[in-house]
Amino acid sequence: MLRSLIPTLLLSPLIWMAPFTAALAGQPLPSWRAGDARQRILAFVAAVTTPGAPGYVPPAERIAVFDNDGTLWSEQPMYIQLAFAIDRARELAAADPKLLESPAIARAVAPGHDTDLRSLGMAGILELVGVTHAGLTTEAFSAVVRDWFATARHPRTNLPYRAMVYLPMQELLAYLRSQGFRTIIVSAGGTAFMRVVAEELYGVPPEQVIGSLIKTEYVMKNGAVSIVRLPEPQLINDGAAKPQAIEALIGRRPQAAFGNSDGDFEMLEWTTAGDGPRLGVLVHHDDAEREVAYDRASATGRLDRGLSEASQRGWTVVSMRRDWQQVFPDS
Amino acid sequence: MLRSLIPTLLLSPLIWMAPFTAALAGQPLPSWRAGDARQRILAFVAAVTTPGAPGYVPPAERIAVFDNDGTLWSEQPMYIQLAFAIDRARELAAADPKLLESPAIARAVAPGHDTDLRSLGMAGILELVGVTHAGLTTEAFSAVVRDWFATARHPRTNLPYRAMVYLPMQELLAYLRSQGFRTIIVSAGGTAFMRVVAEELYGVPPEQVIGSLIKTEYVMKNGAVSIVRLPEPQLINDGAAKPQAIEALIGRRPQAAFGNSDGDFEMLEWTTAGDGPRLGVLVHHDDAEREVAYDRASATGRLDRGLSEASQRGWTVVSMRRDWQQVFPDS
Repeated sequence: MLRSLIPTLLLSPLIWMAPFTAALAGQPLPSWRAGDARQRILAFVAAVTTPGAPGYVPPAERIAVFDNDGTLWSEQPMYIQLAFAIDRARELAAADPKLLESPAIARAVAPGHDTDLRSLGMAGILELVGVTHAGLTTEAFSAVVRDWFATARHPRTNLPYRAMVYLPMQELLAYLRSQGFRTIIVSAGGTAFMRVVAEELYGVPPEQVIGSLIKTEYVMKNGAVSIVRLPEPQLINDGAAKPQAIEALIGRRPQAAFGNSDGDFEMLEWTTAGDGPRLGVLVHHDDAEREVAYDRASATGRLDRGLSEASQRGWTVVSMRRDWQQVFPDS
Repeated sequence: MLRSLIPTLLLSPLIWMAPFTAALAGQPLPSWRAGDARQRILAFVAAVTTPGAPGYVPPAERIAVFDNDGTLWSEQPMYIQLAFAIDRARELAAADPKLLESPAIARAVAPGHDTDLRSLGMAGILELVGVTHAGLTTEAFSAVVRDWFATARHPRTNLPYRAMVYLPMQELLAYLRSQGFRTIIVSAGGTAFMRVVAEELYGVPPEQVIGSLIKTEYVMKNGAVSIVRLPEPQLINDGAAKPQAIEALIGRRPQAAFGNSDGDFEMLEWTTAGDGPRLGVLVHHDDAEREVAYDRASATGRLDRGLSEASQRGWTVVSMRRDWQQVFPDS
């Protein structure tokens, strides 16, 4: 039956249109300049997807994991989720000034402190997250986040935060999916926060977003069930927690891992320690003109050990300045 | 272009072969007897998958969740994973008798106690799991489990445990996938344990197995990284923890949930509380001849509240005796 189908297919416009369509579609990764980084990505994909090649991996087993903050979108001058937390804390404190009795909340909402939340310390940051991310259902929280994204703007570019994504990484996500990979976000960012925009910005569905989690409670009230977010962390998905979460929640070792900071070190280490072709990529923020230049000394998205060990470990360091033709999508 | 394609398609053998192929393929769920349960499952699928119907759900959002023990395979006279734990404890104790200094381990491995592990209590069971499921990497643990499945046999049927799966549920999993659903296991069983057989028995890949988890440690030793299992529970995925895990790890409310015990109550409650067509199904073990008859009084897989509230909640109770033509696959 298949053979008898072939002449039929040859008559199909789909066939003779195909090369033309491909030509229109152009080369993969158009925003990546020709160079070592782009070349190594394409060579890795060819090695894993070429049937019969020694490194061939069946589509069902092709997994690429991506950090989010600083890898897929901007994390300077502060994590986008932290900007959300501060805006929400201000909104909540306006309605309930008692919140300001907490030194951490008071400091967080004070003008000018936006760029120096290190002073809160981890305990203060967890308190801020607890106040601004808990006490409501996932649906209600998602709606709050959605509303925030609709109006909030980046302090330096004055663009909507949704425009602060890296076009070359969006192309990379789409390209890897076109080659049979599942693209999974593995980030220290909050799972529920990222899910609100992950599908729109990255084409990543909710079940492929693995982020930090806060505890929840299953509540039955007046005959209605809901899952309410509690002000207590359940998982902080950073550092060694990333490969552990990959093992627990995916159960396969990825072939490729993309990050930008030392919080991604173990994820790249675990990924590239596997057999066969593996790809470890670090996005290096070295473009002061088009974005921000930072690495070893930065409090947010510090990249020190990774930068030192990348070459000996065979990891690819992407220079935003040299390797990316364009950083952000056209507004 | 699409329009110009239509006449081409009409010429295609695929079109006029289609009805014949369907006839060859036969009806869905062949091991299910005609009756209310089978009818309600088919009606639900039609409601969700018919384009333009009020209850239509796009394929990307179609999710069906399944408990494992007692829903997809037998859980009597004891959980299959518990049988593994006892066999492994005996093996380990033979090599290291000091293990028997623990009352829980000593009781667990004592002959005749197999069917009465309630006497261990939860603490004893966790200790047994810690001794038998921890202290090695996931890869090493999976190999141990694989070896056990290769030889271990069910105490009553003397069949390999892999033959103790329910054929009608295997058909249901495949049928739902053929209708665009992702079939996800949400079980109190151990994630790593179930993954060893989930693909072979159920066609469910590792990343779609959500079970109980034990803590792990990321270890770098002699230049090699590994993830080692620790004798400490991280998540016991039962009762209300199931909808909470679904929310945290899938991020969508399933359209259909299948269980068999009160440990699945909240999962069915959460699933069927959603808008649009929802399906909640409880497998009722009422077939003493072909399997085991148990419900309200059973220590393992107790079904009491679910049985009492199923009809008022619109859940479907599957009678293994009446609704299933055949229980187990042909050996």
